[in-house]
Amino acid sequence: MPKYVEIAQDIEQRIKAQDLLQGTKLANITALASQYSVSKNTILKTLQLLEERGSIYQVQGSGIFVRRKKRRGYISLIQNRGFTDDLKAADETSKVITLETISATEEIATNLQCTIGDPVYFVERVHAIRGQVFCFEQSYYNQEIVTFLNRAIAEDSIFDYLEKGLNLQIGFSDKYLKVARVKKEIAEFLELSAKDPVLFIEELYYTASGRPFDFSKNYYHPDYSQFFIQS
Amino acid sequence: MPKYVEIAQDIEQRIKAQDLLQGTKLANITALASQYSVSKNTILKTLQLLEERGSIYQVQGSGIFVRRKKRRGYISLIQNRGFTDDLKAADETSKVITLETISATEEIATNLQCTIGDPVYFVERVHAIRGQVFCFEQSYYNQEIVTFLNRAIAEDSIFDYLEKGLNLQIGFSDKYLKVARVKKEIAEFLELSAKDPVLFIEELYYTASGRPFDFSKNYYHPDYSQFFIQS
Repeated sequence: MPKYVEIAQDIEQRIKAQDLLQGTKLANITALASQYSVSKNTILKTLQLLEERGSIYQVQGSGIFVRRKKRRGYISLIQNRGFTDDLKAADETSKVITLETISATEEIATNLQCTIGDPVYFVERVHAIRGQVFCFEQSYYNQEIVTFLNRAIAEDSIFDYLEKGLNLQIGFSDKYLKVARVKKEIAEFLELSAKDPVLFIEELYYTASGRPFDFSKNYYHPDYSQFFIQS
Repeated sequence: MPKYVEIAQDIEQRIKAQDLLQGTKLANITALASQYSVSKNTILKTLQLLEERGSIYQVQGSGIFVRRKKRRGYISLIQNRGFTDDLKAADETSKVITLETISATEEIATNLQCTIGDPVYFVERVHAIRGQVFCFEQSYYNQEIVTFLNRAIAEDSIFDYLEKGLNLQIGFSDKYLKVARVKKEIAEFLELSAKDPVLFIEELYYTASGRPFDFSKNYYHPDYSQFFIQS
């Protein structure tokens, strides 16, 4: 892990441990650099990351300040980690319904920028928090990039495995979101009725070099899912 | 407008004008600096901004690349501009239903970090694209920061006025999002029935110095609203 990421995590830990309120002023760049025995440049990268993550804000000529913690129970829409990270603390479990190799349809090929017929992993999962199902997920992984997957991996965190197991660098994502009515087959997984409204989010994840590797359709239960975006 | 923002806009214009595809490689930092007759530092700031806006991605040791344009008709959830900017091109109109000064309730005071009873502007607006209503908005502005508002301003872009008229520096935002069922009074504005599902987004906008000035509740029509998040 790069040094500036380590420092960012340490600062976030401290904000949490000391329960610092929004607007609390933190040490300045020079002080942070000397405290962590790194260059000011490293601290600048740390601060940029913390700002992107919504943990701090910087006021020119005035200093670095803590940002308020998000409300509890909300899922971040800007972290490129799937949703597992946010919910780990909240006893999230994933149950694999399907894991198989299929041929890319036109829709999948368009999104994954591959050829129709190319082999992709098709994974269906049901996600629950404390036993309450809140999301039904259908994901397609380009096998040219995601060369291996199995049920044990999919029950845990696929993204953790991609980074640590396959050494994949996850880059950025596009997410498309709207209210939709579910079909009966999908409604059943969410303990809903056909045509009930859900929050429907299509997600495309790219490697750091800009190749799409994961195309997902996520159906969120309207009563058990809420989201936040800090920007 | 700072030079690096101007350059960012110019690069975005060019990507659009030339209809460049995702993955198209752009000139490198040195070339861009000489092209725009600015320092490499300025270009670094430009690239950071373009990356945040989802217009480019950078691959270490390899270059700067165009990011795919978002699907048409989607509203960005990470731009701190209200939604007007995205939709200007799409003939968005805003109709003011209410504009009055009220006393902050507990909920408003908590969100705007002011005192219960403090004067706030209460603005209700209906937003439409090509005549189709897609959003009913209730906003509360702290009068200590937003010292003046009128109907003419609210029919146009309030954020434009805050920046240009009141010289307010808009900093960051928190957005909270879920599916909700609407009450009859609100349903009517959206041409929906009571208890119909909507996408409900609560937004908090802060000045660059971290003070919340706008607390909004937005009810989006499920059939005419879709959103995207690039991160």
